[in-house]
Amino acid sequence: MQDIETLKNENMNLADKIYIFDTTLRDGEQTPGVALTVDEKIQIATKLNNLGVDKIEVGFPASSKGEIESAKQITSLGLNSTLVGLARSLRKDLDAIIDSDLEYVHTFIGTSPLHRDYKLKMSREEIVDTAVDAIEYAKDHGLTVEFSAEDATRTERDFLFEVFNQAVSAGADFIDVPDTVGILTPILTHELITDLKDNFTTPISVHFHNDFGLATANTLTAIECGANQAHVTVNGLGERTGNCSLEELVMTLKSAYGIDLGLDTTRLYSLSTLVGRLTGVKMPVNKPIVGDNAFAHESGIHVHGILNNASTYEPMSPEMVGHSRRIVLGKHTGANALKAKLKEYHIDLDEEQFCKVFDDIKSLGDSGKCVTDDDLIAIAITELSSARETPIVLKGLGLSSGNGVSPTATVRLEIDGVEKEKAATGVGPVDAALNAIRELIQDDIDVELEEYNLEAITGGTDALAEVFVISSDSEGNKSTGRSTNQDIVMASIIAVLDSINKLLLIKNSNLNKL
Amino acid sequence: MQDIETLKNENMNLADKIYIFDTTLRDGEQTPGVALTVDEKIQIATKLNNLGVDKIEVGFPASSKGEIESAKQITSLGLNSTLVGLARSLRKDLDAIIDSDLEYVHTFIGTSPLHRDYKLKMSREEIVDTAVDAIEYAKDHGLTVEFSAEDATRTERDFLFEVFNQAVSAGADFIDVPDTVGILTPILTHELITDLKDNFTTPISVHFHNDFGLATANTLTAIECGANQAHVTVNGLGERTGNCSLEELVMTLKSAYGIDLGLDTTRLYSLSTLVGRLTGVKMPVNKPIVGDNAFAHESGIHVHGILNNASTYEPMSPEMVGHSRRIVLGKHTGANALKAKLKEYHIDLDEEQFCKVFDDIKSLGDSGKCVTDDDLIAIAITELSSARETPIVLKGLGLSSGNGVSPTATVRLEIDGVEKEKAATGVGPVDAALNAIRELIQDDIDVELEEYNLEAITGGTDALAEVFVISSDSEGNKSTGRSTNQDIVMASIIAVLDSINKLLLIKNSNLNKL
Repeated sequence: MQDIETLKNENMNLADKIYIFDTTLRDGEQTPGVALTVDEKIQIATKLNNLGVDKIEVGFPASSKGEIESAKQITSLGLNSTLVGLARSLRKDLDAIIDSDLEYVHTFIGTSPLHRDYKLKMSREEIVDTAVDAIEYAKDHGLTVEFSAEDATRTERDFLFEVFNQAVSAGADFIDVPDTVGILTPILTHELITDLKDNFTTPISVHFHNDFGLATANTLTAIECGANQAHVTVNGLGERTGNCSLEELVMTLKSAYGIDLGLDTTRLYSLSTLVGRLTGVKMPVNKPIVGDNAFAHESGIHVHGILNNASTYEPMSPEMVGHSRRIVLGKHTGANALKAKLKEYHIDLDEEQFCKVFDDIKSLGDSGKCVTDDDLIAIAITELSSARETPIVLKGLGLSSGNGVSPTATVRLEIDGVEKEKAATGVGPVDAALNAIRELIQDDIDVELEEYNLEAITGGTDALAEVFVISSDSEGNKSTGRSTNQDIVMASIIAVLDSINKLLLIKNSNLNKL
Repeated sequence: MQDIETLKNENMNLADKIYIFDTTLRDGEQTPGVALTVDEKIQIATKLNNLGVDKIEVGFPASSKGEIESAKQITSLGLNSTLVGLARSLRKDLDAIIDSDLEYVHTFIGTSPLHRDYKLKMSREEIVDTAVDAIEYAKDHGLTVEFSAEDATRTERDFLFEVFNQAVSAGADFIDVPDTVGILTPILTHELITDLKDNFTTPISVHFHNDFGLATANTLTAIECGANQAHVTVNGLGERTGNCSLEELVMTLKSAYGIDLGLDTTRLYSLSTLVGRLTGVKMPVNKPIVGDNAFAHESGIHVHGILNNASTYEPMSPEMVGHSRRIVLGKHTGANALKAKLKEYHIDLDEEQFCKVFDDIKSLGDSGKCVTDDDLIAIAITELSSARETPIVLKGLGLSSGNGVSPTATVRLEIDGVEKEKAATGVGPVDAALNAIRELIQDDIDVELEEYNLEAITGGTDALAEVFVISSDSEGNKSTGRSTNQDIVMASIIAVLDSINKLLLIKNSNLNKL
């Protein structure tokens, strides 16, 4: 591969200072279905500030009173990042910026033929006049002005340059190039940004959408060509398919090119998680940099390499972004990965036992099942103890709920051959049944339900419910339980008993994780 | 923007034929936690074939007996796509390919210093000898051979060329360049692929990982430089952050460059959905091309443009990929979008009523709530009818279940002021209660539960359950209902009653959607 320093010297025209302009609170919030409260915006702005982004676009004040209020509250936090508000090229929008105590405005107007003819119904001259009036008005009120020619990438080049020239003459401090419907590719970006840098001395900003999945690559290309600023969002949120992803851009520059923007990248993972939770837009496991699988390894072939040297299958360390590595077993698991996993749990097997466990894992994989650590422990314990019985068996269950009393469950269990029965109440039938179970087994094991996960159900009320639980005992052992049933309550109870039985097996085999 | 034909002529070196090599069933299945059954693999292979991809990598036969069996079954389907199997550079792996009835092998060996030293513990000479032996063995058995130099992008250029030269001499039909840990950028890709095309006449394939979010852009760049084949996966699945996304690459070539590979792109959305469901790896709403929001529009500013001409905010039509457009209301909703939405539902409001509805929508948005079509209808109906009462009220509920009988629910409702009671059974308590409700209201309205969604619950068994349902009546009206409760059963019943009440309001206001 080409040497990075040579690459930078011969093929790049990097700006002395590259500004990261985060627009999660504006573009990100325009994700259909996403709405953030003032408090949530404050949480995100604070995290962005701590990460060290240069600018934070806090909202679009003219769109509602709530937006002005939230901008004011964020302004009052006294963050280091420069705070920006969005405004159309209208005086009333600029007044809303001033009312929000903001000192930096990002003002825009559509410049492409499609936007002129179908959205704005304005001539080229009217577009220029409107943009210039807004910029002058903003400058007159002491604002720093960034001007965007919306849909710049579908605007005639001569008109785009005319608009930018007039904007600069009117006082614009930054000129921004939105690729509004994400039609750029790296080669097209290279041509456009080079042309702009050849013709303008005003700092160039880029704002790229991700309709074809190229927003990060295009933004990177723009920076290589001398763009001074990149608009980004956490998790690549934004309208339609979103904007350039903050974490992807920053880590490509840092890890692939060795360009450090001075951000504390170890905060990226927790920032992504927070934004995912507050917006409700969850990232998939394969999201670059921050996805659950970004540093997870399953295949046997690869895990062998990872165990010797993580760099064999990782381009950067998970610690760089505040993430962590995990090894997952599955149908592709090789003997090396399985041995490492067993060692991790201090489980010693002889060669014959190991082969049996290995075959079991492969069979589970072939049948389409994910193999969890817990499945592995259960299989290994079964091999070790040849005790295949389950200590606790559900023998009977009665549920009732009605007006004026709490939901009630009566549970009958056979524990080591002895039948016992108990009734208990709870906030719902599942909770009631679990309370009864806890009371029944308290002499044998002190179980805490650490996590209760009910997988989302879609279909009818007779669709299968899948419940996954994690239980722990007082000695710190943990186990999982799973169950699938048409009856949500039954699925829950069976999953919990499954996990308790595994805990008892672990306890009885002295297989405590040290 | 630069003219595409000029761009192709002056800056690209496109191959006459570009092969799409899908590896969803192999790389995609190596996604940690993913395992597909034979039947699921057959469903995906059939869809890939109907889409028209040139090659399908069906698996890694040497890894397990199940893999050989599934490869055989897919081979027996007689698909048009060429079927490929993965093999390490080992004779036993190649035997597994032959045992699987496959005629095309993708064989690989690590070539980078990291892979030589830490994974394989082999010298350069041993690597070359092993690769050559495998290729010759495969050719002797009549296989078409594609050879991959694993971690090619971190391999010394001279050694990479030596390995490829020896592979070609041994008979390799395709030489493949894996960017195993996704460290390429477009500029690095350009340099590498141009160098390869200058030195080899054997067709060049690329296999790029997505660790920095650049896999699609890098693959596109490779094709621009003359690469003959691209390895891709549906939804960009694969180890860690996955591989180049099939749908992103194909649509960029087709829509941005006008390069038609002869695929039926209208099948992309349903293929993505199927793979998401079978692998359990759901794409986020902002996934390019196939995400829920890829053609969804919320902001008032934008919807105005979309209503006049969809191209103002879309780079391609949703129909091109078998997707559909939707307009979502929210805190950024402008008057134009709201008016369009009301018109869609044939709701006529006077100016004063409209202003009230508009304010209500804005307030809901500012409070962080998403505004669904159904919320809008409910608000509009309330304005129109000023009838805020709910026709059906839950007055009592009794649930019981036990051994030997089905879960039973007794439901008491007040319907238009009259109390009625009914008992019914079901597969679980929720199903039983809904059966009772259906019987109670059948004289008033014939309700079908179209969809029942229980949001995933994480926490304890006393965590809040959120249920979302869609109901319809015999006239085709639809409504949604939501509820949040600690008791899953109660949450379900309240959500269903909520949706039924809205259906009755729609029916009584003659607000049927025509």
